[in-house]
Amino acid sequence: MNITKPTLLLDEKIAKRNIKRMVKKARASNVELKPHFKTHQSHIVGRWFREEGVKAITVSSVSMAEYFAEDDWKFIMIAFPVNILEIDKIAALAANVELTLLVTDTKQVKELLANVEIYVNILIEIDCGSRRSGLNPNDNDTIVELISLLKGTQHHFKGFYSHFGHTYGASSNEEVLGIYNESLHTLTDLQLKYAYVKPTISLGDTPSCSIVDDFTGLSSIHAGNFVFYDLTQAQIGSCKLDDIAIALGCPVVSKNDERQEVIIYGGGVHLSKESMYDKEFDETIYGRVVRIDKDGWSAPLKDCYVRSISQEHGVVKLSKQEFDKTMVGGVLGILPVHSCMTADVLGGYTLISGESVDHYKFTSVKN
Amino acid sequence: MNITKPTLLLDEKIAKRNIKRMVKKARASNVELKPHFKTHQSHIVGRWFREEGVKAITVSSVSMAEYFAEDDWKFIMIAFPVNILEIDKIAALAANVELTLLVTDTKQVKELLANVEIYVNILIEIDCGSRRSGLNPNDNDTIVELISLLKGTQHHFKGFYSHFGHTYGASSNEEVLGIYNESLHTLTDLQLKYAYVKPTISLGDTPSCSIVDDFTGLSSIHAGNFVFYDLTQAQIGSCKLDDIAIALGCPVVSKNDERQEVIIYGGGVHLSKESMYDKEFDETIYGRVVRIDKDGWSAPLKDCYVRSISQEHGVVKLSKQEFDKTMVGGVLGILPVHSCMTADVLGGYTLISGESVDHYKFTSVKN
Repeated sequence: MNITKPTLLLDEKIAKRNIKRMVKKARASNVELKPHFKTHQSHIVGRWFREEGVKAITVSSVSMAEYFAEDDWKFIMIAFPVNILEIDKIAALAANVELTLLVTDTKQVKELLANVEIYVNILIEIDCGSRRSGLNPNDNDTIVELISLLKGTQHHFKGFYSHFGHTYGASSNEEVLGIYNESLHTLTDLQLKYAYVKPTISLGDTPSCSIVDDFTGLSSIHAGNFVFYDLTQAQIGSCKLDDIAIALGCPVVSKNDERQEVIIYGGGVHLSKESMYDKEFDETIYGRVVRIDKDGWSAPLKDCYVRSISQEHGVVKLSKQEFDKTMVGGVLGILPVHSCMTADVLGGYTLISGESVDHYKFTSVKN
Repeated sequence: MNITKPTLLLDEKIAKRNIKRMVKKARASNVELKPHFKTHQSHIVGRWFREEGVKAITVSSVSMAEYFAEDDWKFIMIAFPVNILEIDKIAALAANVELTLLVTDTKQVKELLANVEIYVNILIEIDCGSRRSGLNPNDNDTIVELISLLKGTQHHFKGFYSHFGHTYGASSNEEVLGIYNESLHTLTDLQLKYAYVKPTISLGDTPSCSIVDDFTGLSSIHAGNFVFYDLTQAQIGSCKLDDIAIALGCPVVSKNDERQEVIIYGGGVHLSKESMYDKEFDETIYGRVVRIDKDGWSAPLKDCYVRSISQEHGVVKLSKQEFDKTMVGGVLGILPVHSCMTADVLGGYTLISGESVDHYKFTSVKN
């Protein structure tokens, strides 16, 4: 592989192993895995899921739904409150794929009824504590109103959806399990309360889907990050470091003997500005360091991490031994803190074989 | 303007006013303004500088230099330590434009001598305390070696360069001035010490270039962010809030009465994940809120800010009054924390007139 500038490497073997593992786990619990494609945003990576029998997917925008509809996905959930400003695009999509949409407001349902002729499936989004979008599970009035508005119309009320992103703040498996069980409890309560409309329940972010073994009670799970994982997930305990499927290859442009640091060509526009407090280093870090070889990359180098980043520069702290081995004109690999964001800012991947892999960002017009 | 998804609005009037002000200031001090184009990364915005008589520019990568060379810029400084893995591209560029390059290592100079036939100008990068790239100003051995290596060759040693990004951490004009004066002192000391090669000195980030009035002693300044400014700069005191030239237009997709918050379609992939501690709110924020109208946007709304963001969601705290006025299906504008990063993740602008403006990221192939 000839790396001359920041290049997002994707290890196909690791990603496929991650996919197989989650597919198997979902099957064992008899729930449908509707993987969230916002992590990879790629037709090619999407096909790796299809090869494992995945039929329905999750995305986070109408544009992303269009991108995957182009690659023949027929069952697409847009896991984002309906943006009524895009109602025409939603109507056009509904004519080609079976859409599942999230609502939180009667206005959304009224617009869907008035402007989308062909049926869509509708889930009510519930906030299980992440303080993002979704109704309060106790907001009985709105829930009842949404359900009655849909009754006897072209659209199908299907149940409840929740994404509890607050597992990302968890620091142990136990904490993730606690959040999962609490959220599951909230949704099964709703399922009982509104049993007259036979609601399904769908939840599951990557930390809980990785840690929980038995998804009994759920209809579907919609985790996405697990395809690549990252340092945040490894620290939570969702994955091992060798489950991380992407690494940013970065040229080394300068060495600083005094600080035992090297400067890499690789900054916020390549890794994103996501950082994390790393327990091991007792520091806020922007990535960990690996050596790239013809088969992929090594385990993270001991005592080596990205200390700071600006737009195009990364400042990398190295151990004495690794510093001595690292030369100006060499290349270091960086494992990302948050793979979804890194993939999005880079907008494309290179496989270990050297082949290019698409990303929505660079093949669609965003504005 | 018909905003249906996150759209980066650029107010041409404000940007042009910011450009004119900095051009005038540089002229008054008789220093050359070589504006850093990494902020806007746009041919069209670049031409607004050309209209003001700017001839030489700064960029942060070889690829970005290529992008602006395509638009007929003839004097380009790549303000990044020479990446010897791109030496062939550097040689090709040097044949078409007058390049100025930064070095920090003898290996870079040796590669330039061996592989780049047509002359380039060379500056030694000095670290004035930002702990990023650049030599320690006391590293006499390396400085002397770099200068002697260049003597009598095709390439021209021109002087010293420093970017002191640590002004971004400053919390007052006085602190910025302190850092500027200290750095200027460091570089003028070097100028005296190596007077036998008549070195020029070049420095200047946006905070200091905005706050300092007299650049006497410098040959050139290379600030860039000032074209758009942002909330970080406003808090430092480099600009006023009405000098900020970009705002992200975001659909409102959900309202949360309990929390007096709205959910916007606009997250980390649109604003970047840059946050700042805002003194006024005593909170970490991801942006401030404005109302968009046909002429641009309003002043920031009192007591309104982006409290959190995930990949596509933004959670916006509003005052009671603004909450009541904000509807699902409406649009809010968000002033960014860091305009360079927001422009980079969006990869394109829309003028108030509705016209599209290019950004390097979406017109080049990055990998």
